[in-house]
Amino acid sequence: MGLKYPKEFIFGFSESGFQFEMGLPGSEDPNTDWWVWVHDPENIASTLVSGDFPENGPGYWHLYRQDHDIAERLGMDGARIGIEWSRIFSKPTFDVKVDVARDERGNIVYIDVAEKALEELDRIANKDAVNHYREILSDWKNRGKKLIINLYHWTLPLWLHDPIKVRKLGIDRAPAGWVDERTVIEFVKYVAYIAWKLGDLPDLWCTMNEPNVVYSIGYINIKIGYPPGYLSFEAASKAMKHLVEAHARAYEVLKRFTNKPVGIIYVTTYHEPLKESDRDVAEAAMYQAVFDFLDSITIGRSMSIGERKDLEKHLDWLGINYYSRLVVERYGNAWRVLPGYGFACIPGGTSLAGRPCNDAGWETYPEGLYIMLKRCWERYRLPIIVTENGTADAIDRLRPRYLATHLYQVWKALSEGVDIRGYLHWALVDNYEWSSGFRMRFGLVHVDFETKKRYLRPSALLFREIASSKEIPDEFMHMTQPQILI
Amino acid sequence: MGLKYPKEFIFGFSESGFQFEMGLPGSEDPNTDWWVWVHDPENIASTLVSGDFPENGPGYWHLYRQDHDIAERLGMDGARIGIEWSRIFSKPTFDVKVDVARDERGNIVYIDVAEKALEELDRIANKDAVNHYREILSDWKNRGKKLIINLYHWTLPLWLHDPIKVRKLGIDRAPAGWVDERTVIEFVKYVAYIAWKLGDLPDLWCTMNEPNVVYSIGYINIKIGYPPGYLSFEAASKAMKHLVEAHARAYEVLKRFTNKPVGIIYVTTYHEPLKESDRDVAEAAMYQAVFDFLDSITIGRSMSIGERKDLEKHLDWLGINYYSRLVVERYGNAWRVLPGYGFACIPGGTSLAGRPCNDAGWETYPEGLYIMLKRCWERYRLPIIVTENGTADAIDRLRPRYLATHLYQVWKALSEGVDIRGYLHWALVDNYEWSSGFRMRFGLVHVDFETKKRYLRPSALLFREIASSKEIPDEFMHMTQPQILI
Amino acid sequence: MGLKYPKEFIFGFSESGFQFEMGLPGSEDPNTDWWVWVHDPENIASTLVSGDFPENGPGYWHLYRQDHDIAERLGMDGARIGIEWSRIFSKPTFDVKVDVARDERGNIVYIDVAEKALEELDRIANKDAVNHYREILSDWKNRGKKLIINLYHWTLPLWLHDPIKVRKLGIDRAPAGWVDERTVIEFVKYVAYIAWKLGDLPDLWCTMNEPNVVYSIGYINIKIGYPPGYLSFEAASKAMKHLVEAHARAYEVLKRFTNKPVGIIYVTTYHEPLKESDRDVAEAAMYQAVFDFLDSITIGRSMSIGERKDLEKHLDWLGINYYSRLVVERYGNAWRVLPGYGFACIPGGTSLAGRPCNDAGWETYPEGLYIMLKRCWERYRLPIIVTENGTADAIDRLRPRYLATHLYQVWKALSEGVDIRGYLHWALVDNYEWSSGFRMRFGLVHVDFETKKRYLRPSALLFREIASSKEIPDEFMHMTQPQILI
Amino acid sequence: MGLKYPKEFIFGFSESGFQFEMGLPGSEDPNTDWWVWVHDPENIASTLVSGDFPENGPGYWHLYRQDHDIAERLGMDGARIGIEWSRIFSKPTFDVKVDVARDERGNIVYIDVAEKALEELDRIANKDAVNHYREILSDWKNRGKKLIINLYHWTLPLWLHDPIKVRKLGIDRAPAGWVDERTVIEFVKYVAYIAWKLGDLPDLWCTMNEPNVVYSIGYINIKIGYPPGYLSFEAASKAMKHLVEAHARAYEVLKRFTNKPVGIIYVTTYHEPLKESDRDVAEAAMYQAVFDFLDSITIGRSMSIGERKDLEKHLDWLGINYYSRLVVERYGNAWRVLPGYGFACIPGGTSLAGRPCNDAGWETYPEGLYIMLKRCWERYRLPIIVTENGTADAIDRLRPRYLATHLYQVWKALSEGVDIRGYLHWALVDNYEWSSGFRMRFGLVHVDFETKKRYLRPSALLFREIASSKEIPDEFMHMTQPQILI
Repeated sequence: MGLKYPKEFIFGFSESGFQFEMGLPGSEDPNTDWWVWVHDPENIASTLVSGDFPENGPGYWHLYRQDHDIAERLGMDGARIGIEWSRIFSKPTFDVKVDVARDERGNIVYIDVAEKALEELDRIANKDAVNHYREILSDWKNRGKKLIINLYHWTLPLWLHDPIKVRKLGIDRAPAGWVDERTVIEFVKYVAYIAWKLGDLPDLWCTMNEPNVVYSIGYINIKIGYPPGYLSFEAASKAMKHLVEAHARAYEVLKRFTNKPVGIIYVTTYHEPLKESDRDVAEAAMYQAVFDFLDSITIGRSMSIGERKDLEKHLDWLGINYYSRLVVERYGNAWRVLPGYGFACIPGGTSLAGRPCNDAGWETYPEGLYIMLKRCWERYRLPIIVTENGTADAIDRLRPRYLATHLYQVWKALSEGVDIRGYLHWALVDNYEWSSGFRMRFGLVHVDFETKKRYLRPSALLFREIASSKEIPDEFMHMTQPQILI
Repeated sequence: MGLKYPKEFIFGFSESGFQFEMGLPGSEDPNTDWWVWVHDPENIASTLVSGDFPENGPGYWHLYRQDHDIAERLGMDGARIGIEWSRIFSKPTFDVKVDVARDERGNIVYIDVAEKALEELDRIANKDAVNHYREILSDWKNRGKKLIINLYHWTLPLWLHDPIKVRKLGIDRAPAGWVDERTVIEFVKYVAYIAWKLGDLPDLWCTMNEPNVVYSIGYINIKIGYPPGYLSFEAASKAMKHLVEAHARAYEVLKRFTNKPVGIIYVTTYHEPLKESDRDVAEAAMYQAVFDFLDSITIGRSMSIGERKDLEKHLDWLGINYYSRLVVERYGNAWRVLPGYGFACIPGGTSLAGRPCNDAGWETYPEGLYIMLKRCWERYRLPIIVTENGTADAIDRLRPRYLATHLYQVWKALSEGVDIRGYLHWALVDNYEWSSGFRMRFGLVHVDFETKKRYLRPSALLFREIASSKEIPDEFMHMTQPQILI
Repeated sequence: MGLKYPKEFIFGFSESGFQFEMGLPGSEDPNTDWWVWVHDPENIASTLVSGDFPENGPGYWHLYRQDHDIAERLGMDGARIGIEWSRIFSKPTFDVKVDVARDERGNIVYIDVAEKALEELDRIANKDAVNHYREILSDWKNRGKKLIINLYHWTLPLWLHDPIKVRKLGIDRAPAGWVDERTVIEFVKYVAYIAWKLGDLPDLWCTMNEPNVVYSIGYINIKIGYPPGYLSFEAASKAMKHLVEAHARAYEVLKRFTNKPVGIIYVTTYHEPLKESDRDVAEAAMYQAVFDFLDSITIGRSMSIGERKDLEKHLDWLGINYYSRLVVERYGNAWRVLPGYGFACIPGGTSLAGRPCNDAGWETYPEGLYIMLKRCWERYRLPIIVTENGTADAIDRLRPRYLATHLYQVWKALSEGVDIRGYLHWALVDNYEWSSGFRMRFGLVHVDFETKKRYLRPSALLFREIASSKEIPDEFMHMTQPQILI
Repeated sequence: MGLKYPKEFIFGFSESGFQFEMGLPGSEDPNTDWWVWVHDPENIASTLVSGDFPENGPGYWHLYRQDHDIAERLGMDGARIGIEWSRIFSKPTFDVKVDVARDERGNIVYIDVAEKALEELDRIANKDAVNHYREILSDWKNRGKKLIINLYHWTLPLWLHDPIKVRKLGIDRAPAGWVDERTVIEFVKYVAYIAWKLGDLPDLWCTMNEPNVVYSIGYINIKIGYPPGYLSFEAASKAMKHLVEAHARAYEVLKRFTNKPVGIIYVTTYHEPLKESDRDVAEAAMYQAVFDFLDSITIGRSMSIGERKDLEKHLDWLGINYYSRLVVERYGNAWRVLPGYGFACIPGGTSLAGRPCNDAGWETYPEGLYIMLKRCWERYRLPIIVTENGTADAIDRLRPRYLATHLYQVWKALSEGVDIRGYLHWALVDNYEWSSGFRMRFGLVHVDFETKKRYLRPSALLFREIASSKEIPDEFMHMTQPQILI
């Protein structure tokens, strides 16, 4: 009897430019903050970054047809594909004039990108890149597949953000990325240009992926090794505000040029209280990590941003990324994350709750996905797509059950009325995991980075069984419940 | 391009009566040594046996069609299926007269089962059981599949072997099984009868499965909990001799009644020296465990049996069961098995060689299968079938790679000229693992023993990919090399 | 301020003949069931026993002065020292006549050993052994130390118990040890003789050590490898009855010949319910393991023995051995021991309760000692001595804290009014741990079995600090609470 | 017979101001870079520092008598005690004039601190602090003990180094510590002043402790969380040069004011090649980490510093700190540290070489101490003191053997002619382990940081046995060889 998903439910994959595109000669894009960041010898020496280089990656820029073939064979009918801003505009767009409206407090409340500005942008833009993206995206669309175009996935053009210069000179003397309000304006120009050039292709737009990771890791949890590694609450706060505004202003420009729903992708980590009396601090922690940002662009009111009418109702759908939980307990006046649970476990070990942990030390905790789907649905009543879910598991010892248990939680939420439209696995193929490099392997498909050859992991076979039937077949129902090892 | 197996190479499964048949009402067979053994309260209290009961098993006796369906879906085209002697003859056959020829030392050198004896046996035999076996075996044959009938897989009729009485009264005052020479004679009657009644069905005959386990665990390694748990070198030695003779005399009777090749199935554990200077003792240990028996029935000469012309050339094919290795080092005048390798590891751990270990603490060591295929081929030059290979892995974290790495070693041996005819996985579905009960799960297919429902493990999907194409497809080549975790 | 013990509280060690005496030429005693048991090649091959031999042991028979020196240096002022029956009577004493009184059901209710019988025994006895024991015991006494003589610690003279013959011939055709009622009578002769010859030496008598281990492991939990490894509830039951009677009759004879208090040593394992609803089965299990026997010889009434006035009040003091707990849960109509707790853990691992486990896989659980001291005191109101407590920990990573935490629990029970007279550590020096051989090292003092040299473990230094001050000094109070690792 | 150390061999402890002094009211010293660093909310949020505060430390500032008592009881006869620059000069000393001589390249080659300058410094100095240090140091000296005064152990006065300002404003706009050459000059003033005021007390001077840690962690391995966490090869390089010069100029001033030998304390980690072919890169790595600095101040020539006659022969004795090794292999053109060995192991686990690892994940590898003693002796022919050696082991499961195995290696080097004068354990009592806070416990003596009470660990008893006899007594010889667990 199995567990059926709606007929129009999408099974697919998610992809980002920096992590997947490079790999074969001609695919290098050195014009980003992340490129200089991961190549910086001081970063490598300090082990902030792995020493692996993205130009040795899976090579989707050239091999996209092959990857689309595999996706098709695995029963996938949708994908979220990223565009790299830096490939489109490797040079500054500062000189292109746009109208920026501000409120009395100086916040940017609207950006008008006129036809003339688009034409100017077109002169600056890298046409080859635009055309190549059209080829990639069309190849997927022409197979009759659904397409989500994502416009920002962590990499900024180097002319907007130079993390090495930030370190050397200070954040006030170097291109400061999202800390600098200009990034909002330039982002909107870029988004308008893409809408103008490629707006016929997507079924859905996505403005950005996991903006909170950018400001929390980039400016606070700097040991993880994301640019600019500049420890500052104030910088984090500014970056957050600008990302919120960038989303809202991009939303408007996308709605003006196209009639496709515009969403955002957010990592919705469940913050679980260690014990009942920690519930308030766990909620506070989760508010800060998840709802603070999302409230801003839906309700138009949040703790960090305050009241902003100009941000309200700027979301048509919500992309949820989910990997694991955090277990939180009260600590002094605030809270702390408990080691031994969630993202804070021993790689390849067992969590204190008896759950197996992946190669990155992330606990398998599928129940959290259900909880977050419910919480987000009840709070925002927007259509949801699971835009990332997967695990770093080179030898595929956990992934088959990871897949089945998480898809079961999606089904459970669906069956209780949550409006979920699809499930995009992270990832189709192994790729470049940011500061961890190639060691963390998230693919249903193993990649030999030397030869760029693709090999199926067993979980790919299971994915195919489920995706091609749009159900968890009865014969796999035994894999839908989490393993508890103690 | 993948690794191809010969077109006529068989992919299939192996099965035994006691472990698979029972499960649904009407399938119980209480007339065996193993039945009384695993139900004995003293055995259970002592933890020699698990306390699980075979009558709660997978229920193949009734569900064989369903299991054959699954096997077919998984691309299987051959099977080894066992017949339970005790189901055919639940009462003694002592009174049926046969001619027993002996040599000057009193060894049984020939047993003549006349037509009249067969008719007498027919009056004693349980016709319903004979007919039911015909149904099971025909169901498989009628699908166009290859069939190996195995005639003995560890269970003896209770009238020949009562292990509880052996314990209570002594081995000289109770039905003593293979220690008693009469078991040889009764076995040959039973074999002759099966050949007479079901001889049209098999493609190959197998006299018995892993006879060495019967006498080594039953009479020496008694902590493992096999009947009769009677510690005695002398009894082990007698049992071995009788098993050798039983095979040889059964071989003759099978050849007389049918023209199908007759083989034996043997567990060919690779005994690896810890260091080069241990090679002689490792070879001695392996001779004792493997070649001593097999030499007897091929060369007609062995250390334990001596020179016996009547045993020579009594084998048409060899079934090889392989699970793991033993690492051996010199110890005093003899040798000992090293903990931390092979079968002597921590369940779910990592061996001292960095190999992952299964739920039973058995190290994954595929290279040993290749070595034993080569060794057996070079020694006997008989066609080989891998008749058992698999792993106890409830959550399928190891099995996909276990399968691919072992099939790779089979391919490697094939490619070097070893005449291997097939690979039968142990097991198709979870079953009753002797004194360990249901805790050790060997199935490609998970069984819910409550409901008897079958569920596919991911490894079943991989098996299907390989078996249905008779190759290890290129896209799974990354799984053919063993994992080494340190 | 530290935790003070009463001034007359004894700190000391416990010792047994078979485990400690042998080691140097001339110390071998081959006339016991255990000697033949551990030397039997079939037992060794089956891994029921280690293959280590007691004649390679620490050599107390010759080195007792040195060990007494060490004990003295460590602040010990008491010891329990065993006498080996087989050394005193290596030949049968059957022919010595004694009066055996029986009740109407045939139970032995009194044994009168007349003067004449003692003289006959004296002719059979090995005088050298008697004298040598006098030397050993006097050496200790002459240091002004307290002495408990223990008369039976698991080894029986071979003429009373031949476990190999029991296996080969059956229990009805071989010297059957405690299953045979004659063992009761011969034991009392031996005890009377010792009282007559060495009765001036001890401060306290002990009839026997851990009788329950003898019948439960010898006849039920046979995988542990104790003689005769004869699985039989009935034999276990008989052996228990005879041990109870042997104690009671020995008690009488000791009281007749001497005026020293007579006790028994018992292993009082705490049986803890997994959850509250398992309490009844845990209590039932503990009754069977502990109170059934002890009730018989105190209250004169027990489940196994029934009502026996002749057994009542036959105990002056109680020796408690404590190592770890068992966690028990309901299982069908009975109960089962849970792996992952108590004695059923991974060697060197951590229990499911987060407690460290020793080299034998025994969980450190000091609270259980307190509970059993209280339980035994409340039930019997007899003076208690902790006669064994210690841990198998070759590298002394656990022993210091094991010592401190268990001594803390003793102190706690003392402070609540439990009448505890002393604490005897098991063991002073490494010794022969029965079927495990030399691998399990319980000594405060490391023994190099090659050279017989003694080395102090750090825990010996801690023992000295505590014993010599008769308190847990304030500066070690941090070690009195159990470690919990999760 | 034991292993004897020379009669004048010193057993003692090492101590540093920031880690030990604070704990009781009145002991706080907020005027250092480390104080602001560990209190900074952004550092805490980023987990660069633990969130523990040094003002909750063991409180040596007030409890020194008690700690000296303990040290005396443990048989210690020497100590290295640190003075906190910031306590002496909490305000800048820039205005005190001294003569700075430079070579043609501008390097500081001599600093002359005139009498007048000392008097000016005396007006700025905190007299209470000077007097309190005199009390502490005299208390130790008056017990007839040897004293090494260490003048710099990582903490700089805040007026010289403000790591939070460095982060906020850039290294060119904030007090930059050792990156700023002025720190050399101010250091020499401070050293001269101490020599002038307290020069009667020490038996030996030490200029500084582990200078390489300051520049490698502070400017390169910034994930470890030491100030200023400013990633820059150039800054590291400058800091190193200034530390070298500071040592040399301080050496001169100490020699001018006193006649005590002047040394330096250095962490001499053994860099072991993974395989023979990695030996050259391992040597290169070790040169960079160890010999580059030490060569500068002895030979007057090194890779980083070049040829500098003014630095030559500026060392009278060498303090060696040793904790574990690093295993190194070739990686591209350079080398990398292998996880699973040395400092890069799982806390509480076992290294890939089978060695136990401490609470910080540091492998126990005593052989490396011997190697480094030999290497340093052969290279410099200076008297050596082991100035730090110990392990983070809260429950003392490793420390006793750690102590014995490392002292054995010291003895071995001594016996081969290496001129080793003493062994100072790190640490006497638990203390504040820099960015790790109180979780890493190095004490022979456990500290309850709430109550400041001291408790002995078992290893303290072992230390006493060895130190008080100046030998490893025969009875502890079994603990001198490393444990290898696989």
